[in-house]
Amino acid sequence: MKQGNQTWVFENKPVIISSAAVGGPHESEGAIVDDFDILHKDLWLGEDSFEKAEKKLLEEACSIAIKKANLQNNDIEFMLSGDLINQITSSNFTARTIGIPYFGLYGACSTSMEGLTLASLIVNTGFAQNALAATSSHNAASEKQYRYPTEYGSQKPPTAQWTVTGAGAALVGKSGEGPKVVCSTIGRVIDMGVSDPFNMGAAMAPAAVDTIVNHFQDMNIDPTYYDIIATGDLGKVGHNIASTLLSDKGLNMPAEKFTDCGMIIYKENQKVFAGGSGCACAATVTFGHFFNRMKRGEIKKILIIATGALLSPMSYQQRESIPSIAHAVSIEN
Amino acid sequence: MKQGNQTWVFENKPVIISSAAVGGPHESEGAIVDDFDILHKDLWLGEDSFEKAEKKLLEEACSIAIKKANLQNNDIEFMLSGDLINQITSSNFTARTIGIPYFGLYGACSTSMEGLTLASLIVNTGFAQNALAATSSHNAASEKQYRYPTEYGSQKPPTAQWTVTGAGAALVGKSGEGPKVVCSTIGRVIDMGVSDPFNMGAAMAPAAVDTIVNHFQDMNIDPTYYDIIATGDLGKVGHNIASTLLSDKGLNMPAEKFTDCGMIIYKENQKVFAGGSGCACAATVTFGHFFNRMKRGEIKKILIIATGALLSPMSYQQRESIPSIAHAVSIEN
Repeated sequence: MKQGNQTWVFENKPVIISSAAVGGPHESEGAIVDDFDILHKDLWLGEDSFEKAEKKLLEEACSIAIKKANLQNNDIEFMLSGDLINQITSSNFTARTIGIPYFGLYGACSTSMEGLTLASLIVNTGFAQNALAATSSHNAASEKQYRYPTEYGSQKPPTAQWTVTGAGAALVGKSGEGPKVVCSTIGRVIDMGVSDPFNMGAAMAPAAVDTIVNHFQDMNIDPTYYDIIATGDLGKVGHNIASTLLSDKGLNMPAEKFTDCGMIIYKENQKVFAGGSGCACAATVTFGHFFNRMKRGEIKKILIIATGALLSPMSYQQRESIPSIAHAVSIEN
Repeated sequence: MKQGNQTWVFENKPVIISSAAVGGPHESEGAIVDDFDILHKDLWLGEDSFEKAEKKLLEEACSIAIKKANLQNNDIEFMLSGDLINQITSSNFTARTIGIPYFGLYGACSTSMEGLTLASLIVNTGFAQNALAATSSHNAASEKQYRYPTEYGSQKPPTAQWTVTGAGAALVGKSGEGPKVVCSTIGRVIDMGVSDPFNMGAAMAPAAVDTIVNHFQDMNIDPTYYDIIATGDLGKVGHNIASTLLSDKGLNMPAEKFTDCGMIIYKENQKVFAGGSGCACAATVTFGHFFNRMKRGEIKKILIIATGALLSPMSYQQRESIPSIAHAVSIEN
């Protein structure tokens, strides 16, 4: 049922019966290596293009999640997936491989929580017993498409972020063991006029803040309710902006709870500018790292606010600013 | 509730309380001009890029649908939209204008029925009182992105199709006057190996056939049930292939019922190769033409199977074939 302006409460508490996280070479030297199911040392994954490598990451994440639940591809009733590549071909081709009814999504780096929200809606309302939410990103494929091919070695400002090479998948089921999806706050597109694609954190921070504020209002709770409140990929720059904006709105986020997936995935000494980004950032950190922490009982209630910068290289060239969105999902053990 | 393998039956019968169709210059000389709310003679709509023109078409369609229902933007609870432009910027920027919670979709030319399906699910299950499904396409913006800028004047084979310049929107509500959404059959990605982007009809026909066959199986009905069974944008070539494939599967589609939106929108003497295509093809013909025919009582039960070719220019250059999908929605008066 809907609560407040933009939150869905899943009264039947759909269960994340399995999940998977796959990463690339940079992630294999990161801070949460034990939380990945596979880590590839080869950025190409043996393929002849970065786009095909990304598809392989996504196929692996879906396949592992399905196997962990002791199911076959055709046991999965619906798949929801999206990614950053033009026309979301990584997702489309993965959906071809799996061969089940499919909804293609585009929410940029908010896709993990957009998909998890819709999968939870479908399962909560009994329109399926299970549904798979997945997403992926690939550093070199994204750089090539959005900025410059990595082979050019072009320089970046410190506000830039490092697109995660990886994929995450979560299988939502009607019942079983695992973290439960409690509610989702669906984001609105917010645009405060930032137009610098090397500063996505600043562009997305106001969208994250809007969704966070609405989440707490709609649910009539405050930040003390959660053990972890993590945005998707604001990075250090965006995280600081979000903290300040939230504080201005009277929401003081405890520093030990309020974090960002883009600040968790890599080590301090890795050269990732302001932090990680990309669809796979929130997806792998949530479906890998946070779910493992929940399994170990370290944390019980998490709010993930996946943030998406809804620009295109062309909209930037046409001097548009960067519209952004954030979808929040509350997950409890 | 789910019925059969891939069909959702909306037992609360969400109502399409209003809809809108907007078109461009080619559409203003087409066969269904009375079914458009606005027809623009200027392909640019006064904007300085085709992409901005497309955004304007989509904004207009959404705005008209909302006005027809005597509502304001902020009365609309959720918006679901997608389009063909990289990173679906037409939809993202329109969602910024409207300013309500938003799900970005990518289903290529199947987006109209993907969005209508999810909007109907949301309203049917009481997660909202209303939800707006919308989509757009622009001939010159699509040609530039997928093939060649139209200014090049490059030639095309007769199997090619003409991307519709236009936008369609449908506002789904819990109750009220209007056509009712009865059920949706969600498509799987089907790929029979066609790799020619100038023959999308042939690529998409098997996906349409798969969804149509599953729809009739899941619902345990036959083609006599409907007054109109229309695919989205197979065009003449794809339509003939689909008819043959369906016949091979024992489903003989009566010629007077089985049609294609891409064969309806333009006049016989317009130079559109095998027919119309693009997200706006199924959207404008359904939300404009067919709904008007339903209002006039000429037809009562329609099945729209919106077809999408899930390729990208890059996947084509990388020698991939064209994965396709089709989502079917059954609408009754």
